[in-house]
Amino acid sequence: MSIDQVSLKIHKKLKGKLETRSKIKITNKKILSAIYTPGVAAVSRAIATDVRLARKYTIKSNTIAVISDGSAVLGLGNIGPLAALPVMEGKAALFKEFANLDAFPICLDTQDTEEIIRTIKIIAPVFGGINLEDISAPRCFEIERRLMSELDIPVMHDDQRGTATVVLAALINALKIKKIKFNQAKIVINGAGAAGTAVAKAIYAYGGKQIIVCDSQGIIHQNRTNLTAEKKIFTSWLQPEIKNINTLAEALIGADVFIGVSKAGLLTPMMIKSMAKQPIIFVMANPTPEIMPDVALKAGAFIVATGRSDFPNQINNVLAFPGIFRGALDNNIITITDKMLVKAAENLAACVKKPTVKKILPDPFDKKIVAAISKAIKK
Amino acid sequence: MSIDQVSLKIHKKLKGKLETRSKIKITNKKILSAIYTPGVAAVSRAIATDVRLARKYTIKSNTIAVISDGSAVLGLGNIGPLAALPVMEGKAALFKEFANLDAFPICLDTQDTEEIIRTIKIIAPVFGGINLEDISAPRCFEIERRLMSELDIPVMHDDQRGTATVVLAALINALKIKKIKFNQAKIVINGAGAAGTAVAKAIYAYGGKQIIVCDSQGIIHQNRTNLTAEKKIFTSWLQPEIKNINTLAEALIGADVFIGVSKAGLLTPMMIKSMAKQPIIFVMANPTPEIMPDVALKAGAFIVATGRSDFPNQINNVLAFPGIFRGALDNNIITITDKMLVKAAENLAACVKKPTVKKILPDPFDKKIVAAISKAIKK
Repeated sequence: MSIDQVSLKIHKKLKGKLETRSKIKITNKKILSAIYTPGVAAVSRAIATDVRLARKYTIKSNTIAVISDGSAVLGLGNIGPLAALPVMEGKAALFKEFANLDAFPICLDTQDTEEIIRTIKIIAPVFGGINLEDISAPRCFEIERRLMSELDIPVMHDDQRGTATVVLAALINALKIKKIKFNQAKIVINGAGAAGTAVAKAIYAYGGKQIIVCDSQGIIHQNRTNLTAEKKIFTSWLQPEIKNINTLAEALIGADVFIGVSKAGLLTPMMIKSMAKQPIIFVMANPTPEIMPDVALKAGAFIVATGRSDFPNQINNVLAFPGIFRGALDNNIITITDKMLVKAAENLAACVKKPTVKKILPDPFDKKIVAAISKAIKK
Repeated sequence: MSIDQVSLKIHKKLKGKLETRSKIKITNKKILSAIYTPGVAAVSRAIATDVRLARKYTIKSNTIAVISDGSAVLGLGNIGPLAALPVMEGKAALFKEFANLDAFPICLDTQDTEEIIRTIKIIAPVFGGINLEDISAPRCFEIERRLMSELDIPVMHDDQRGTATVVLAALINALKIKKIKFNQAKIVINGAGAAGTAVAKAIYAYGGKQIIVCDSQGIIHQNRTNLTAEKKIFTSWLQPEIKNINTLAEALIGADVFIGVSKAGLLTPMMIKSMAKQPIIFVMANPTPEIMPDVALKAGAFIVATGRSDFPNQINNVLAFPGIFRGALDNNIITITDKMLVKAAENLAACVKKPTVKKILPDPFDKKIVAAISKAIKK
């Protein structure tokens, strides 16, 4: 059976992957009276007097909302809230499995930015943190920024900053293997959506000095019209000599690193051959990468990473988000800063004792990871 | 320890009563790939092609939202969304325990009617049903009515129609014991909020002919000004002779049944003594009833029921809501009608083989109940 068939079969059998349960078995009237009326009134009264007690007496302190509007689901695009639900359920299941966080999927039947922000603020009381997921750019930037500033619980759009954390960790180890200093690497990022933008910012924050960001129209130059605020930032990083070139192919000549968060087929063997020796290739388009790993290796790639589980070096968000939110909730962090995530990426990279071309990231089931990341998410 | 102390202790120890869990243990990469990316994409694609498949592949078909704005929590009033959370968690736990439904609490940080309606519509995709809870009257009427008509999943405000189902069942059995026909009983309802209004309508729907509804200003007469649409309905049921009386005390003279969903202390021994012989007294004010059961019995009450677990005849919503939603989801019911709930009340009453003055309702742990009720919720 193909992975698709296995997945469909499992989902049909389970009728959804997530369940909610009472932590206490309700077997008699005494327990019923304590967890529900009349006993529960004492708990409600206590919280009404001091809302901070909600963290002591309710699920709030350990519960994450996994929220999507279904506008940019995996590599499938705008497929709507119901089709997004299996992904959000899966993510909620991973939160529990890897970080012992209770998580619940919320799929929104609106794609209006203001309405998304308002809705999330209205349903926020139950949650200790908000994991935004699969919301398309550029709306996702505004939504994450506004919620971060307007809510008193941690908010992170995982496709942006979760992805960036894992990519940065992978790049730290890949450049270590290639024996080139981070600030001397010439890095080309293709794709300036949610993930590409956050990846570029994380690499810059960690000390990247030669970063070129491309989108579907080529290099993001100052002279381009109608650039979003996010894209404008990239133009200020460009070295003077880049002014004279425009295409991804030109950008890649002599580059050390290609990071693709774009589309299947956008990287050719010819492009890889034009790069510096021992090129590092992260091709994360989903489900089909920008170039298939075997083709990339044949063209001379030194290290190849993808978003897929069926090749070595999977750049998988599950390496980061459980630990990030575990740390945020355990350390009472209201704002998960980019600085914390850079530290988290360093800690994640360090989980691999001796990185090799086929192992730049730890195995998701490595028990060290959540603790390593969560200790970076603190004041 | 008092029940309050036990309850606080349990809540503190558990840090909330509800947990979410993966139905499948995620122990290796193969399972990870099937329940999350890349395998889950096949499920999302299938649902994107036909949204009805969400009921087959996701949690939707078995998941209930328990939603409150914290405006009318238990007998505590408008204590806000965080203080409402322990109650909603408890309710969610009961859904699982009694009807094997997965339920999740949603506490809304708004008390604006339109915003509540819009928010619930936006978050509806994940859920198979909506249980509204502890929302104050008269907003709750509009909210329930609008959501029932605008959503394609069953919606019920439990404080209205869930309560009414249990009260009707209790009344059916109480009048059977008193040996008086339902349509001949003189019934006084005190309290015309969410519960009182729904109780009155259910009793009328079941054939009640002599119903007087009172609110804090006395009998709800046609000549009262500023009556809400809901309250106006009651005036049309009044017998001609009621025109000349105004107070609850007057209404009760010769009455067979008092149903209080009002406030502690509103029913006096003198009033009970003025009622017909063998008066039936349902005093459901929370946590302190309109009259304490021992005082009512001393004044001549024949049957006394309360909302409390520490006296006989507890009128507890847990007798109804699990079975109502179990039936709605199992039978693909989009609209839970009042007619279905009248049938559910009959079935619930029939769960007590031989009703007695101290047992007019079944024990909540009676395994027959959910099946008895759920089979009433069908087309």
